[in-house]
Amino acid sequence: MGVASLFRVIEGASVTAPKGFRAGGLHCGLKKTSRNDLGAIVCEVPAVAAAVYTTNVFQAAPLKVTRESLAKGNTLRAVIVNSGNANACTGKQGEEDAYTMRAEAAHVLGVQVDEVAVASTGVIGELLKMDKVTAGIAALPASLAAGGSGSEQFSQAILTTDLVKKEVCVSLMIDDQEVKIAGSAKGSGMIHPNMATMLGFVTTDAKIHPDALQSLLRETTDVTFNMITVDGDTSTNDMLLVMASGLAENRELGPQHPDWESFAAALRHVCEILAQAIARDGEGATRLVEVEVTGAISDLSARTIAKTIVGSSLVKSAVFGADANWGRIIAAVGRAGEPVNPETVDIKLGTIPVLMGSRPIAFDEEEALAYLKGDTVVISVDLQNGKGSATAWGCDLTYDYVRINAAYRT
Amino acid sequence: MGVASLFRVIEGASVTAPKGFRAGGLHCGLKKTSRNDLGAIVCEVPAVAAAVYTTNVFQAAPLKVTRESLAKGNTLRAVIVNSGNANACTGKQGEEDAYTMRAEAAHVLGVQVDEVAVASTGVIGELLKMDKVTAGIAALPASLAAGGSGSEQFSQAILTTDLVKKEVCVSLMIDDQEVKIAGSAKGSGMIHPNMATMLGFVTTDAKIHPDALQSLLRETTDVTFNMITVDGDTSTNDMLLVMASGLAENRELGPQHPDWESFAAALRHVCEILAQAIARDGEGATRLVEVEVTGAISDLSARTIAKTIVGSSLVKSAVFGADANWGRIIAAVGRAGEPVNPETVDIKLGTIPVLMGSRPIAFDEEEALAYLKGDTVVISVDLQNGKGSATAWGCDLTYDYVRINAAYRT
Repeated sequence: MGVASLFRVIEGASVTAPKGFRAGGLHCGLKKTSRNDLGAIVCEVPAVAAAVYTTNVFQAAPLKVTRESLAKGNTLRAVIVNSGNANACTGKQGEEDAYTMRAEAAHVLGVQVDEVAVASTGVIGELLKMDKVTAGIAALPASLAAGGSGSEQFSQAILTTDLVKKEVCVSLMIDDQEVKIAGSAKGSGMIHPNMATMLGFVTTDAKIHPDALQSLLRETTDVTFNMITVDGDTSTNDMLLVMASGLAENRELGPQHPDWESFAAALRHVCEILAQAIARDGEGATRLVEVEVTGAISDLSARTIAKTIVGSSLVKSAVFGADANWGRIIAAVGRAGEPVNPETVDIKLGTIPVLMGSRPIAFDEEEALAYLKGDTVVISVDLQNGKGSATAWGCDLTYDYVRINAAYRT
Repeated sequence: MGVASLFRVIEGASVTAPKGFRAGGLHCGLKKTSRNDLGAIVCEVPAVAAAVYTTNVFQAAPLKVTRESLAKGNTLRAVIVNSGNANACTGKQGEEDAYTMRAEAAHVLGVQVDEVAVASTGVIGELLKMDKVTAGIAALPASLAAGGSGSEQFSQAILTTDLVKKEVCVSLMIDDQEVKIAGSAKGSGMIHPNMATMLGFVTTDAKIHPDALQSLLRETTDVTFNMITVDGDTSTNDMLLVMASGLAENRELGPQHPDWESFAAALRHVCEILAQAIARDGEGATRLVEVEVTGAISDLSARTIAKTIVGSSLVKSAVFGADANWGRIIAAVGRAGEPVNPETVDIKLGTIPVLMGSRPIAFDEEEALAYLKGDTVVISVDLQNGKGSATAWGCDLTYDYVRINAAYRT
């Protein structure tokens, strides 16, 4: 990527790396294990904030509360997150509980209630054990730390069936000031019984106009988090939240700023890394699948086709079996509902062409098998029908996916 | 169903039961086993015919040839079908091969080429072994029979990974004449490497106007075959073909005929039984899942929601695990992209209410488990938001689905 040179990745750093942010997490008792299940990111100044939410009709209570906080002035001092319970389909009591979480967090942190966002992930349809949540919130301030330990505790606190935490941090220069953008995310699939949530939290010390941040976030989400699929099911709790402390002291970023594109590229990288990490850690997954579609009539069309391929159960099963089954790929292209010239499709698995001009190409099965057994499988589809392109990420469909999701809730 | 009394089911009968039809099948050598892989249905008079085809962009060669035959006059004397090879993505040679199949069949049966339809199912991207096909076609006339043995041989010849043949026959009285409608279908999923085809063949001795037959077929397909999903992947070869011999000697059927609704109900029953049989025999399936959606803003909206639920990997996994996981059902409702009132959804598993007004209902987990372990699971979703309704059919997602589809092609 040409843009990569515009920023550098800081290994091992996460949401507490940008100036002004502390984070923490602890076990309050919502998870049956002793793993962290309550966390927070806190900013020492009001951070310009933007968020995107699940499109699911059944939005969970914390999303309503977070929307209200953001509507009040586009700034946040904190986000509080619990795992182990989604607080979704929980009615009036669920809403009251989400408001209580917000109020308690504001109280112990000494900020206004509408400066606090709330997120939840876990079981649908069960009420939060509020005694545990309230006690946990009271203990949260003591767990907050500015360095790696703070972000580590936070990143652990938001996990459900995830096997690994997902963090990233990049740095770039804007107006001769170092600006950092960092993120932490969770998302794996569902289990026991309904943990489907994709949560993402991005911090930056960039100074940025709130409208510019919101529109950039939406644009970036469309090509990153919205391009992953583990099982095609959209949660009731998905949320991606960005907080910008402004402490890097650059001139306020917006589309007119000369470094706007650099900032956008850096934010996109942060979101892309987190999105890929979620796909790679999909329930039961053994490998990351990346689908690159080029030559579509538009980017939007390319996105639809890429997501159809990466979401196909048959393609996903074939990747699990390391089977160079291009027939399933072209069948997915053909059912995506997008304009395609049936005579001009090229397909490559990694660098191995398997289809040219919609006709099979003889290829070395052993070479293909070796490639498909790798950690990451890249499927490239060139439609030769326009200039639209897109990339989508997913994972293979495995016995473990079925095992995890067929498990009784009890 | 009130309409059921308008017709009666004839057990054990199939496509040769309506007057005028013979059928047969044999092993010509396309399948590695000795199972039948070539079959035909033949009508002793020109049969009024109608067909619907896959919406996949990459339509296989036989579909092109069949379309041409039907365009020539809406009548057919025969359909010839092979399994073991889909003749899809096979270029000019594949088209020539499909034309050759049609010409050879017309020759040995003594009919015009444009009175013959062609269908194929099996591997994508490989050329047909035409020496075997040609030899098989030459031997086909000897295998044709009017009774149960003919339809039995035919029904076997069209199977790929299907575990059971799928047949049905109904009888009803029109103008004091007995009219029969019968069907044979195949479809299970994909394997080795790309067998995805849904093929359906319906015969009737009703006299019917070709335009009425075509529009009724399309309408019926929308609420039967188009309402099933095994894995969400649409084949390049799907075809549903109806042939009406007219030998029952009723007055010509059309929307003005007083018994039109009865005929439509009987045809719908035939298609519904075949569609359910395909869903129940889905790759790796252990149970049939029926999703009934009511209270939607329109039938079309209800169809989208029903198909979203029945196609959800998470719902399918939960059914496999006999897990009363309604959270996944409501999450699927919410992401279907259709208007839903988030406060008014009722969900039942069989007769067991699990959600009322979008709020969880306490239910007996043991009772639910016992129900979900049955042969057929009915999920009822009442949106209480309109008068639209729909039913969709699918199957559970099992280890065997992954095993079957992860298998190497070699």
